Amino acid sequence: MIVRDFNELKHTDKAVSDARWTSVRMLLADDGMGFSFHITVIEARSEHQFHYKHHFESVYCVSGRGSITDLGTGETHEIRPGVMYALNLNDRHVVRAEEELVLACVFNPPVTGTEVHREDGSYAPAQELVG
Amino acid sequence: MIVRDFNELKHTDKAVSDARWTSVRMLLADDGMGFSFHITVIEARSEHQFHYKHHFESVYCVSGRGSITDLGTGETHEIRPGVMYALNLNDRHVVRAEEELVLACVFNPPVTGTEVHREDGSYAPAQELVG
Repeated sequence: MIVRDFNELKHTDKAVSDARWTSVRMLLADDGMGFSFHITVIEARSEHQFHYKHHFESVYCVSGRGSITDLGTGETHEIRPGVMYALNLNDRHVVRAEEELVLACVFNPPVTGTEVHREDGSYAPAQELVG
Repeated sequence: MIVRDFNELKHTDKAVSDARWTSVRMLLADDGMGFSFHITVIEARSEHQFHYKHHFESVYCVSGRGSITDLGTGETHEIRPGVMYALNLNDRHVVRAEEELVLACVFNPPVTGTEVHREDGSYAPAQELVG
């Protein structure tokens, strides 16, 4: 059994930050669960474009308030505690935080921890990172 | 993109209850994400034994307070907001809620929604359910 605490990991190299967001990697590929699990905190009054071309991701709102726009359809959905969105079509999207958002995120295939967001908002697939 | 709200689904057949716990299935196998995602609420002052022989599960505490005992090792770990445990060895375990626990759970392989907890605390593997 693996037991980890967000409040400890957020002070370690498991916390990865970019402009106005921080993602704490609670489970990564090498934990062998077949998915990775992250707690991501998005700063209030910030907006981010992501496009995970090579990963499915689900995102559950633990706290905060904001919105997500599907750039494929133009539809916008409110994000508030209890709302989950799942990017089952590798959807290109924009996330906006009105208040600080705390999000529980699952990635399949699991993130290895060495990815960086590329210019296009995607993570590279693992094989590109290995190569 | 799939968008779902715990506060709506908890009143539908996506909410599955057993003795003193309720699991709201936010994502199931047929959503095609490769994992399932559930919000599980365990009633205050209750105790539960589980053994997912055929699934890996990670559990993140959104709110509440309790503990988990690994029945293989006898070790007990506190559950509080921010703590995650991952059953990477299909560990047989007991979960205790002192206060109501709200848990974000990920299963791999994904739960289909038709499983029931068997006498031994496990879910059957999908192929047993199909057969």
